[in-house]
Amino acid sequence: MHRTRVRVVRDALDANDTIARANREDFDRAGVTVVNLMSSPGAGKTTLLERCLKGLGGVRAGVLEGDVRGSLDADRIASLHVPVAQIETEAGFGGECHLDANMVRSALPSLPLDEIDLLVIENVGNLVCPAEFRVGEDLRAMIISVTEGEDKPLKYPLMFRACDLVLVNKIDLLPHLDFDLDKLLHHLDAVHPDVPRLLVSARTGEGVEAWRDWLVEATSRTREPAVA
Amino acid sequence: MHRTRVRVVRDALDANDTIARANREDFDRAGVTVVNLMSSPGAGKTTLLERCLKGLGGVRAGVLEGDVRGSLDADRIASLHVPVAQIETEAGFGGECHLDANMVRSALPSLPLDEIDLLVIENVGNLVCPAEFRVGEDLRAMIISVTEGEDKPLKYPLMFRACDLVLVNKIDLLPHLDFDLDKLLHHLDAVHPDVPRLLVSARTGEGVEAWRDWLVEATSRTREPAVA
Repeated sequence: MHRTRVRVVRDALDANDTIARANREDFDRAGVTVVNLMSSPGAGKTTLLERCLKGLGGVRAGVLEGDVRGSLDADRIASLHVPVAQIETEAGFGGECHLDANMVRSALPSLPLDEIDLLVIENVGNLVCPAEFRVGEDLRAMIISVTEGEDKPLKYPLMFRACDLVLVNKIDLLPHLDFDLDKLLHHLDAVHPDVPRLLVSARTGEGVEAWRDWLVEATSRTREPAVA
Repeated sequence: MHRTRVRVVRDALDANDTIARANREDFDRAGVTVVNLMSSPGAGKTTLLERCLKGLGGVRAGVLEGDVRGSLDADRIASLHVPVAQIETEAGFGGECHLDANMVRSALPSLPLDEIDLLVIENVGNLVCPAEFRVGEDLRAMIISVTEGEDKPLKYPLMFRACDLVLVNKIDLLPHLDFDLDKLLHHLDAVHPDVPRLLVSARTGEGVEAWRDWLVEATSRTREPAVA
């Protein structure tokens, strides 16, 4: 029976990759750079997005929000007058714990792809499955907050290995924690050497400028400038 | 295709329930109370266990650790001379994001059920799928740390609804956060009214006595005292 389950999962992954490629072609055609943003629940994905979306220079951003239930995050983004669409994963048997390519595809008609240069997909808060499903993104960024402990890269290696940027968030809390930042970075190097990392605080704004720069640079690196 | 996927998931759940019942029968025969402990990554499951396991009076505890990769948590528990077994979920296609009844069943021979009164199963850090899979437990406890934000009960309703106790951890950090505890409890009441909740700090030990009392009470309530 175990063998049967693995078989099903592999088939699902293949279908996912097929749809992810179709998404990618649509994004390419529209000239939109796509960043898949992942983290544990409560690590600060939405707050870090709120912090950066209005300061991206000429880059026009949109957001796709994935949540098990509710539109709390989408409402926060919409209040910034940024185009946002919402995927609620609860249609599954108790809530899907990740976005897959098909869910993203179903949301594409709700997004004005021709009017944006950058789409950030805020995945469901989870350090395991989101890293297993490509959705058609160019780049993956993940957030680890310093309140989560130094051991996370060792315990969730796929997530830390699959990403192109690691944001270390909530560094304003470091004075109040028994947390060894060097140890986290050491564990990160063990799992994904040389991955770019930014120390940030969504609360104080420290490091947010570098996060904005990374998004702007990612957009210009992966896409030709739009021709009017 | 979507219908097919839902069908597969339901079959898997049924098989899980069958095995969970078999686990439960084994636990009942051995007179062991089982608590399934769940939370986001880094919310403090292991630290809260370390804090309480040695102060349970006459209750002899054991631990089953679920992690995607590594035995870091199991090693921490073992250093307290508490019986511990470890399930590594990485055998799946990138790491299972939850424990299921079959994984727990496979670990039972590694646990001295006749020598313990209480088994705490530390699930994989995740607020979605662990709540969907019964593993044969009597009770479910979940931890939300105050660094995760007040909105989590609304975003992950199944997890908060499925549990018999909510531990609100890291309350020592409240003075350093923009976090409204009343708002969290209000959201919790909206999703699961009257669920018992304990405010704790694994770091300072505040509230840990009440957590120990809950475990001792749960053990005596669900099992007859062992007859020598």
